[in-house]
Amino acid sequence: MKPESTPDFILHQRLVQDCFPLGRFPLCRLLLMNDSSHPWFILVPERAGVREIHQLSAPDRAQLWEESAGLSTLLADIYRADKLNVAAIGNLVPQLHLHHIVRYRDDRAWPGVVWGRFDPVPYADPFDGRLRQLLERLPRFEANPLP
Amino acid sequence: MKPESTPDFILHQRLVQDCFPLGRFPLCRLLLMNDSSHPWFILVPERAGVREIHQLSAPDRAQLWEESAGLSTLLADIYRADKLNVAAIGNLVPQLHLHHIVRYRDDRAWPGVVWGRFDPVPYADPFDGRLRQLLERLPRFEANPLP
Repeated sequence: MKPESTPDFILHQRLVQDCFPLGRFPLCRLLLMNDSSHPWFILVPERAGVREIHQLSAPDRAQLWEESAGLSTLLADIYRADKLNVAAIGNLVPQLHLHHIVRYRDDRAWPGVVWGRFDPVPYADPFDGRLRQLLERLPRFEANPLP
Repeated sequence: MKPESTPDFILHQRLVQDCFPLGRFPLCRLLLMNDSSHPWFILVPERAGVREIHQLSAPDRAQLWEESAGLSTLLADIYRADKLNVAAIGNLVPQLHLHHIVRYRDDRAWPGVVWGRFDPVPYADPFDGRLRQLLERLPRFEANPLP
């Protein structure tokens, strides 16, 4: 547990099942959705019981958006995104989490949204060169030991 | 034009067509989507040419999230939301805009997302008591003259 996280924070079981844990920012855990159809990253603030962005304290909100903007800047660059979809939905998983989805004009859901459209296509190996490059370039990020 | 807005900011035609203009925060215009199926509000930063959140300057990003959190807090309270969906998608309308959608466990799209699911149901009159209450309670908000 990091000193900043609330002591009773536990990652929601659905996120554990659906994602690869990549590491931690000062506020958030970074996950990769196990769906090779889209480069799809999720930030989860390590704060127990928070469901909505506006329920975070003002310093935590500022930190969330710093981490989100840093991640987004690198996603746009490394993945050559046509568009980023950044969204807090949470209808199924109430624990606050923020999607960052790289979109391309020729991806299978374009121009629609990706939620609820298709079954995920699990990765054979997500830790390709682009992902490694992303993890190395993220500021103030502590990567999990990579396989 | 407000002094803070960039001189060449023009609201995207699709947003003009689909929404009611409600007024302005220091950074963003506030719109109401003309779909009575969901209380659905949109913040549009008055910055020309910006497509992604991370392209905003750091002070503008901080202001966006202050305006978003203030709006969200009141939406949760006044509309008794079960959940808020806060999202920057922009696959169809490239101008940066941030959705704030009040969700209920018995709304027609729950637990799915609302984008691309159903045709909108236009309002007979959106300016009901809850909307007027919202506009009166928003901090640092300049409402358009109400009808």
